[in-house]
Amino acid sequence: MPKSRLGNVLIGQSGGPTAVINQSLVGIVETCRESAQIDRILGAVHGIQGILTGNLVDLGREKPKTLAAVAKTPSSALRSIRKKPTADECREILHKIEALDVHAFFYIGGNDSAETAHLLDEMAREKGWELHLFHVPKTIDNDLLVTDHCPGYGSAAKFVAHAMMGDNEDNRSLPGIKIDVIMGRNAGWLTAASVLARRHEGDGPHLVYVPERDFVMDDFLADVERTYKRLGRCIVAVSEGIHAKGGAQLVVEGEKDSHGNAQLSGTGALGDFLAAEIKAKLGSKLRVRADTFGYLQRCFAGLASDVDAAEAREVGRAAAQAAIKSKQQSGSIAIRRKAKKEYEVAYDVIELSRVAKNTRRLEEQFILGANDIAPAFLDYVSPLVGKLPKTAHLSDFPL
Amino acid sequence: MPKSRLGNVLIGQSGGPTAVINQSLVGIVETCRESAQIDRILGAVHGIQGILTGNLVDLGREKPKTLAAVAKTPSSALRSIRKKPTADECREILHKIEALDVHAFFYIGGNDSAETAHLLDEMAREKGWELHLFHVPKTIDNDLLVTDHCPGYGSAAKFVAHAMMGDNEDNRSLPGIKIDVIMGRNAGWLTAASVLARRHEGDGPHLVYVPERDFVMDDFLADVERTYKRLGRCIVAVSEGIHAKGGAQLVVEGEKDSHGNAQLSGTGALGDFLAAEIKAKLGSKLRVRADTFGYLQRCFAGLASDVDAAEAREVGRAAAQAAIKSKQQSGSIAIRRKAKKEYEVAYDVIELSRVAKNTRRLEEQFILGANDIAPAFLDYVSPLVGKLPKTAHLSDFPL
Repeated sequence: MPKSRLGNVLIGQSGGPTAVINQSLVGIVETCRESAQIDRILGAVHGIQGILTGNLVDLGREKPKTLAAVAKTPSSALRSIRKKPTADECREILHKIEALDVHAFFYIGGNDSAETAHLLDEMAREKGWELHLFHVPKTIDNDLLVTDHCPGYGSAAKFVAHAMMGDNEDNRSLPGIKIDVIMGRNAGWLTAASVLARRHEGDGPHLVYVPERDFVMDDFLADVERTYKRLGRCIVAVSEGIHAKGGAQLVVEGEKDSHGNAQLSGTGALGDFLAAEIKAKLGSKLRVRADTFGYLQRCFAGLASDVDAAEAREVGRAAAQAAIKSKQQSGSIAIRRKAKKEYEVAYDVIELSRVAKNTRRLEEQFILGANDIAPAFLDYVSPLVGKLPKTAHLSDFPL
Repeated sequence: MPKSRLGNVLIGQSGGPTAVINQSLVGIVETCRESAQIDRILGAVHGIQGILTGNLVDLGREKPKTLAAVAKTPSSALRSIRKKPTADECREILHKIEALDVHAFFYIGGNDSAETAHLLDEMAREKGWELHLFHVPKTIDNDLLVTDHCPGYGSAAKFVAHAMMGDNEDNRSLPGIKIDVIMGRNAGWLTAASVLARRHEGDGPHLVYVPERDFVMDDFLADVERTYKRLGRCIVAVSEGIHAKGGAQLVVEGEKDSHGNAQLSGTGALGDFLAAEIKAKLGSKLRVRADTFGYLQRCFAGLASDVDAAEAREVGRAAAQAAIKSKQQSGSIAIRRKAKKEYEVAYDVIELSRVAKNTRRLEEQFILGANDIAPAFLDYVSPLVGKLPKTAHLSDFPL
């Protein structure tokens, strides 16, 4: 292979999908197309599983019109996988990559996918195969290290804000105690976004519980009782990942994926459990309801944040530029927020090892006490979500 | 009171809120304001409860700008109530209405509210108090008789369509069996709207279960197994109100409201129950998830259907016009779809007794077999929902 050519590139998507993960995919494809060094742009269907089984597609043949529409479609167009490869599988993947004459591999995913990319990168180096290996970040959990925030998060936060705004009006109209369970296994970023729904005096969520704090049932019940007495209603935003002291689980979970993560989504168990506790301890006649926002949070159609969509596209482009134009060996793309009055970001290439595996928890500066989110968080999250719909209350003029 | 004047009017909102119920409120207020016959426009906070307790507000003093913003705000701005009044309470309500010199009462609600309006209308007639009593329809369940459809339904159906479109892409990306529980106690109208999400070959929902059919567990499990074998995935849309043969409940429900309705919303029990049955009978290793769309369906902010919002406003205006301009004694407003190529409607005044209490089930022409919705339903529902976001799949060109 002459130095001026890179051969073929390969793209995969991994982990839980987001509303804007295809923006990153299209960002990579369009940047690769601009380069004369690339022969073919291949796609692995279902991530590394598709490499192992030979389930590959030719992305280079897709029409620009199709790509433009795919970019706006939620969830992973190349389909996804939750899979931690064994050392043997990593060798097999690299073997396939060599056979395909692939010299750049882009893996769009979260910290588990970054770990996979990191393993493959090290193995390729040992082997001496020229492989530009880039992790392209995505996760609605916003729990990747280094980056200011993660593509996918802004859109999920927007969904949570819209849902909570509506639920707040609903609960104001038919008062009671309402539990809303929000995604976030180890980090409270998405649950924290529920405070965007506070638009008027007395608006919920009135209590917010994140996994960064131990969840103490007695304190929770006292918090709910106090709020209900004060306002005649109470909306609680709670992370699916809350846990008792020492990390002990509140409810027994069955399933685990191959990364060892417990199945917390796709069931109403936590919300129903908390609602039952409230009824048992505070009064069975109370109107207590629980909603689990569930998978709707990550792929809801037609509600992507504009900023999030644009950044997801740019993160894909930045990875392709780093691999192809700058010929960097490997890395992940981090979004850096500039210290300006107007929201503005830059895209940095960082080492894979800095993102792989680990989780970034909701920062202490954003947590207020045991059951609330600090005002500073609104400055952080608002630009990522964009404009929210206006809501208004009656003035309630007395007769 | 001189014949040319009507005195004061009173407005209340009742039952489960919708995304456009305030459009009807504002439609009534603005029409009353146009009339020289009206002295004051009063609002009952929490419906008939507010009349009984004297919790009333002066809507006539609200600024047009506030009303315009309130109209676009989901849920009942006057706050709501689920309450079936006793005969004594009805007498008390009429007594208050007389004391307030109210000669027109508008009650925005579903069939339970129509029943309350019907009772009050008959009592006012007996008593000889001139009271123009109008029920203004709203319900996301779309289960009122006579009217072609109900204000609130189009917006909830839009939410279900967006949610199911996203969930379909999600499930396509990470295949498995997915149960989505959709609101609808006695009627499958909202669950049926999930088929709007079918945009491409193979899209879900692949199975749809409505309360108009008995739910047979063995048939359900066979349906799921067959679909999963064929497609490698299966999305199921299921009404919260599904029941076994003879109307027997599938899961034990605790709470009932004062109209005798079981609490089916605000819990993940049904979805979790169905998911557990699938795992127990079809294989514990299957990836099975359940989401209960819950209260998000009825008040989600910023996603109202344009047609639904406009019609909800018109229904409020039509009620006020019937009461004030036409001086009709009482009635409910029905939307009549004109037999034209382009979607167009008219607003009819119908007798309260025709709407009160009863439920309109999903029509047989819209149900296909035991587990699907007929294509004709799309012609019915599409104009009510409006345009949906475009989604696209990759062409999957082989290498």
